[in-house]
Amino acid sequence: MPDPRFYRRAGPFPLHEIGTRVSAIVASPGRPDLFITDIAALAAAGGSELVYVADNAYLPALAASRCGACLVKSDVSGSAPAHSAVLIVDDPRAAFARIAALFYPDASLAPANPPTSEISPDTHIESSAVVSAGAVIGAGTRIGHGTIVGPGVVLGPGCVIGAQVTLSHCIVGQRAVIHPGVRIGQDGFGFAPTSTGPMKIPQLGRVIIGDDVEIGANTTVDRGALEDTVIGDGTKIDNLVQVGHNVEIGRKCIITAQVGISGSCRIGDGVVIGGQGGLADHVTVGAGAQIAAKTGVMRSIAPGEVVMGYPARPIRQFWREIAMVSRLTRRDK
Amino acid sequence: MPDPRFYRRAGPFPLHEIGTRVSAIVASPGRPDLFITDIAALAAAGGSELVYVADNAYLPALAASRCGACLVKSDVSGSAPAHSAVLIVDDPRAAFARIAALFYPDASLAPANPPTSEISPDTHIESSAVVSAGAVIGAGTRIGHGTIVGPGVVLGPGCVIGAQVTLSHCIVGQRAVIHPGVRIGQDGFGFAPTSTGPMKIPQLGRVIIGDDVEIGANTTVDRGALEDTVIGDGTKIDNLVQVGHNVEIGRKCIITAQVGISGSCRIGDGVVIGGQGGLADHVTVGAGAQIAAKTGVMRSIAPGEVVMGYPARPIRQFWREIAMVSRLTRRDK
Amino acid sequence: MPDPRFYRRAGPFPLHEIGTRVSAIVASPGRPDLFITDIAALAAAGGSELVYVADNAYLPALAASRCGACLVKSDVSGSAPAHSAVLIVDDPRAAFARIAALFYPDASLAPANPPTSEISPDTHIESSAVVSAGAVIGAGTRIGHGTIVGPGVVLGPGCVIGAQVTLSHCIVGQRAVIHPGVRIGQDGFGFAPTSTGPMKIPQLGRVIIGDDVEIGANTTVDRGALEDTVIGDGTKIDNLVQVGHNVEIGRKCIITAQVGISGSCRIGDGVVIGGQGGLADHVTVGAGAQIAAKTGVMRSIAPGEVVMGYPARPIRQFWREIAMVSRLTRRDK
Repeated sequence: MPDPRFYRRAGPFPLHEIGTRVSAIVASPGRPDLFITDIAALAAAGGSELVYVADNAYLPALAASRCGACLVKSDVSGSAPAHSAVLIVDDPRAAFARIAALFYPDASLAPANPPTSEISPDTHIESSAVVSAGAVIGAGTRIGHGTIVGPGVVLGPGCVIGAQVTLSHCIVGQRAVIHPGVRIGQDGFGFAPTSTGPMKIPQLGRVIIGDDVEIGANTTVDRGALEDTVIGDGTKIDNLVQVGHNVEIGRKCIITAQVGISGSCRIGDGVVIGGQGGLADHVTVGAGAQIAAKTGVMRSIAPGEVVMGYPARPIRQFWREIAMVSRLTRRDK
Repeated sequence: MPDPRFYRRAGPFPLHEIGTRVSAIVASPGRPDLFITDIAALAAAGGSELVYVADNAYLPALAASRCGACLVKSDVSGSAPAHSAVLIVDDPRAAFARIAALFYPDASLAPANPPTSEISPDTHIESSAVVSAGAVIGAGTRIGHGTIVGPGVVLGPGCVIGAQVTLSHCIVGQRAVIHPGVRIGQDGFGFAPTSTGPMKIPQLGRVIIGDDVEIGANTTVDRGALEDTVIGDGTKIDNLVQVGHNVEIGRKCIITAQVGISGSCRIGDGVVIGGQGGLADHVTVGAGAQIAAKTGVMRSIAPGEVVMGYPARPIRQFWREIAMVSRLTRRDK
Repeated sequence: MPDPRFYRRAGPFPLHEIGTRVSAIVASPGRPDLFITDIAALAAAGGSELVYVADNAYLPALAASRCGACLVKSDVSGSAPAHSAVLIVDDPRAAFARIAALFYPDASLAPANPPTSEISPDTHIESSAVVSAGAVIGAGTRIGHGTIVGPGVVLGPGCVIGAQVTLSHCIVGQRAVIHPGVRIGQDGFGFAPTSTGPMKIPQLGRVIIGDDVEIGANTTVDRGALEDTVIGDGTKIDNLVQVGHNVEIGRKCIITAQVGISGSCRIGDGVVIGGQGGLADHVTVGAGAQIAAKTGVMRSIAPGEVVMGYPARPIRQFWREIAMVSRLTRRDK
């Protein structure tokens, strides 16, 4: 469930009301008196929580879920676990977005009721910085001019946060170095295509940043949609990098300037990505892999693999192809 | 003419003074007493306004213009309409830049004499935000910490503007969501090459943003040079995107992170552009076209076309070429 | 040596203490009483300053250096000049990083003891801007809302600095135009790979910006590591560009949006780089060269050369190859 440190939940709502709001057919109304208390990801859902499946790849996860209710298309309604109510809709993703907005009507705004602030006395906060209610700031942490620490944000001890950074919906470890203009924790780019245009999916996750992470100027790290965006210990990120929602980056990675990492990528420990490289969404990159500058990764990369080009291919193959095309062209004149 | 909400105009200036300032030959001095009141784009010019043509592609537009005077090269001076005075110069673009700076000497600065401010009483403006003179802010709009709303800027009702955004020379519709660090309305990248180096062309247009637009963190949208930069209703733009001056984006488009759209592109409704895609200047993209991630578009794209690669080509052709090169290289070993 | 305007130096330290801190073998202890007063680049070092060589390409520069001591690997220890003490270590770069942090423990923070401020009386500084101690601001310069001028920063006369810019460790010439959200002078992306992960190398240089330079919104310019990042007179840089540490850009260049220039590149006068182009580190680009949009430059480019593609090749060759592959693919069907 979304972290109450950052999000205020409405509800609970009776199942039939939820069904009505999204014009669902309630296929297994075994529990007519069921109240839905929250939305959740498939693996995390509890017995009174609502999940959805928009892609058949997630049917096994649905079958294993302990969810109380699920939004599915009619042709897969048999895949729901027996204990779950089933709401059949044409577009589960769009329906889930509507219900998410019902539970979390203020998700784009500052959360209400943050916890009590805890500001270490030896924090150094420069003028015109704003530290919002509920923030927790560790010993020795420095916050630059004009930086905005949002409600409920946690900064570990020994961090150096530059000027004009915005931090929201995030929990940061020890000794992080965040350069000027970094944006952490804003909404991810989540829209369900519908017949009336792109429909916004509420973004209800967090950003979790480990110890000894460095993030370069004007880089952007979106918070997760339901799960979290995670940056592992010791990872170094350069300027103007984009990290999409739900991305998980391992430890001690090197991410060079202007790299773009699309939503839900999984990047192992010690990965190196050259400047202006890009990863399509849901790509997995194994530990120790190296991705050359400007490379476009559209499939998963094995641990230790070294790739280059667009689409990404083994670096030796890339150079052989470049040489072959050059040779053929000379012959071809 | 440039919007007086944002720009203060000097002048009028007598035609002969303008001619002298740019060392022009006045080829048709039929109206020796003509006063020039403003500069203008070809299609919008009135009878006392000055236009220019630097590219022969615009000669038909010149012939149809109602302009009072035009800056042209000697070899095309016959293309001016009979009612227009003709100023012959070696470099019409550079000459126009000089005259634009004469009429609008403060174009890079905040405009003077903005209209009266109208701030709806239920606007929520966080501390350290700055709302400048002449701003208009609709009901229910929220403005984050440190955000700068420039003189004369208009924000419709129900907008959510994040922290540390800068807005200038722009008019924004209803329910726009603008994420932290977005830059809207600064000068476009307009320079005339001259023998002494790049010469700045005053940027005198606006940014017009429709309803239900979302713009991601640290994205930049430059204002138009003479005409406007336009973003249509329902379009969603991700983080770190560049939108150049005079670009027109249609409705319900999806523009993914780190895309770059060069000046004067025209993008139809419902277009999707993948991450790190780029468009050269003056490219037209038809409605419903799809441009894959990292694609470089250097020619116009038909409605519904799906392209990939650099240079952009039909996506099936792109993949066939990739497969062919890979196959040949294996054979070639 | 690092500029005392921006960095406070500790020390001096006896040579043997430095050797002990990095577990060095002192190979030529001819001056047991030597005190090291500073770290330095090879060409700039004086007789009591410490340098390092991590790459054999720098051995000639080491031989010519007037340094007092050098950090080298054992196999090249014979290349040090006779007057220099020699400290043999396994990883000279990491060792140098440790010693740099010893001399400059606060390099990531604001410098102490900046010089006296000199603010011209006709400077226009908007509300919520911060001008730090030791700043020098020339006549007629304008500074936008929320902009942070760091300690010791120098801005020449007639500059226009937009809103929410951060300037640190930099010296800016006359009439510079810096757009909103620009980040100048933050740490470069300098990490020495070690067995325990990336180790930060203190960034102790500056950014030097010439006259009549324009820098677009949300662009980032990192300061040098030991030497300076330099942008020449009259150069124009668009939005969202990355300029890495130690880069030197000549005069009257045009750098279009989203270009990335890696560390230590040398770019001659009058170079044009198209949108989303990228340069690998240590590349030299000759005067007047042109680099097409999206091009990836991995080798040095001759003066006047026109290149395109990834890897960059002569533009005619690029187009011939594109045409050849297309033709072959059609035949191949």
